[in-house]
Amino acid sequence: MKKLINDPNNYVEEMLAGLVSAHASLSLGGESGRCVSRSQPAPSGQVGIATGGGSGHLPLFTGYVGEGFTDACAIGNVFEGPTAQSCIDAIRAADHGAGVLCLYGNYGGDRMNFDTAIEMAELDDIACDTVLGTDDVASAAPEEGNKRRGVAGIVLVYKAAGAAAAEGRDLAGVAAAARKANAATRSIGVALAPCQVPTADAPNFEIADNEMEFGMGIHGEPGIWRSELSSADKVADGMLERLLPELDVKRGDKLCVLVNGLGATPLEELYILWRRVGERLAQAGIEYLPPVIGNYVTSMEMAGASLSLMKLDDELEALMTAPAKCPFWSVS
Amino acid sequence: MKKLINDPNNYVEEMLAGLVSAHASLSLGGESGRCVSRSQPAPSGQVGIATGGGSGHLPLFTGYVGEGFTDACAIGNVFEGPTAQSCIDAIRAADHGAGVLCLYGNYGGDRMNFDTAIEMAELDDIACDTVLGTDDVASAAPEEGNKRRGVAGIVLVYKAAGAAAAEGRDLAGVAAAARKANAATRSIGVALAPCQVPTADAPNFEIADNEMEFGMGIHGEPGIWRSELSSADKVADGMLERLLPELDVKRGDKLCVLVNGLGATPLEELYILWRRVGERLAQAGIEYLPPVIGNYVTSMEMAGASLSLMKLDDELEALMTAPAKCPFWSVS
Repeated sequence: MKKLINDPNNYVEEMLAGLVSAHASLSLGGESGRCVSRSQPAPSGQVGIATGGGSGHLPLFTGYVGEGFTDACAIGNVFEGPTAQSCIDAIRAADHGAGVLCLYGNYGGDRMNFDTAIEMAELDDIACDTVLGTDDVASAAPEEGNKRRGVAGIVLVYKAAGAAAAEGRDLAGVAAAARKANAATRSIGVALAPCQVPTADAPNFEIADNEMEFGMGIHGEPGIWRSELSSADKVADGMLERLLPELDVKRGDKLCVLVNGLGATPLEELYILWRRVGERLAQAGIEYLPPVIGNYVTSMEMAGASLSLMKLDDELEALMTAPAKCPFWSVS
Repeated sequence: MKKLINDPNNYVEEMLAGLVSAHASLSLGGESGRCVSRSQPAPSGQVGIATGGGSGHLPLFTGYVGEGFTDACAIGNVFEGPTAQSCIDAIRAADHGAGVLCLYGNYGGDRMNFDTAIEMAELDDIACDTVLGTDDVASAAPEEGNKRRGVAGIVLVYKAAGAAAAEGRDLAGVAAAARKANAATRSIGVALAPCQVPTADAPNFEIADNEMEFGMGIHGEPGIWRSELSSADKVADGMLERLLPELDVKRGDKLCVLVNGLGATPLEELYILWRRVGERLAQAGIEYLPPVIGNYVTSMEMAGASLSLMKLDDELEALMTAPAKCPFWSVS
């Protein structure tokens, strides 16, 4: 798999150097050197939001540091969780005196290192709470929702939690908003072609020329089924059939919709997929905010797409439409 | 090459339906049904900007319809110029009583059909002028600059021309700004992997697993040389060595920089490429605006990247930094 890179061992550092040099709103620092935070921190007394995760998913995770989104991000190697030092760097950078919500995807390594960092933060007298992104319906059964992985839906949870923090809610209030947003969000993806970790010898999975895998995770974790490549409309229908019942979406309900590209899938195809999703929702009398469409959570050059739905009530709708600004998503 | 689509013959119509359904600021219309225009047109008396081109390059061309960018876009089939009917639809939609600048890439089919449309527009008493994007240095020698193709740099020219129109300049003034912006802009691309037209049986070119092609066009037109895949730093250096002398860029000059992904190349790699570009510019004492980095002009799932530079003077800098808003680029 061809990559436009230098030494694969410098991939993360060079990517980060380019990212912060391009975006004056982002600063790189921390003892680990692996923490991106806002160059203009949120006001003193505002609850901070720290996140983190492996590299290779841009704009996730670190691109969503900004006003009305997250405050700081701990950065791991490609497809590896951030170190505990990177996590405590992010917590410290996110602290404005009102406590820090640690909001990240439900992966074992990330949990272990954030938990260690939270113990360190207690020594600094920084109050912390944790909310895990668990939106991927393919990764565990509904009754084991706490075992589910976080995928693209976490971006929607960032938006809701960031708006709650910007409103001036306290740590318990921001955590409650994030929990509610995550509980109202479900995602499912379809993969058409793999990606390759820069230091690896081979792509992260194999798939035949005429196949797709429904429900595959963003690191190539096995999905629900593998089948012949089907039409965009059938993929859209299959995604909606999995997601809508889980959220108990009925006529008159309102959704926030994210049609996300995994990396190599052209924007044209995301719009073709969206067209069917929007038509089906309209036919069912389900309302939606202007959809969010593009490459928001990727797996480098993986081909495929995911659909995330958040079921809105008045509170979540207000949070999702509040003004916010980061390098890769602005709401005004 | 796997695509998440339905009937390939419906590719453009379904993409357009999804695009305008997702973005309330865009409307689809015209007698051709292949014209996207602003849902809230610019004020009466403002010069209009009409553009157009083949599909398969999103966000180009039609994504740059918006405030401070273009007013309407004629849409062709994948990698084919728009019809004359589509071009006259775009000119009519862009007309607010002060004339229309037709601003599009220098391709034969596009020129022929826009020229026919301009003759039709004269019968409607719509004054027109034409500026062609000719930024691709690989497509002809410097002394034959008018034979060069337009590639990613046209997005920068849209920005400059759109700002000039929003300022209230007359048609001659907007055309002059667009000509100046285009004359100050150069681009070069590198391709790593091909794409495939949805109705075609095979990818649009072949390239070995260890090769890249320097200077390849956005439809797979032959480049300057083909070589072994080299490092991102060497690619960046090679691009700068081609572009800087053409623009006679010296210490103290200021640039607008676009690091563009062709479709399948991850954002991480664009930042790695940018890192070297930014370092080299800084070492040479060359200033730059915050760089524009992402997938702005693509060729569906083609892998690779391009670098575009615009050499700024005070007028161009003011135009490039003026507020503007379209679905894929906002300047505030």
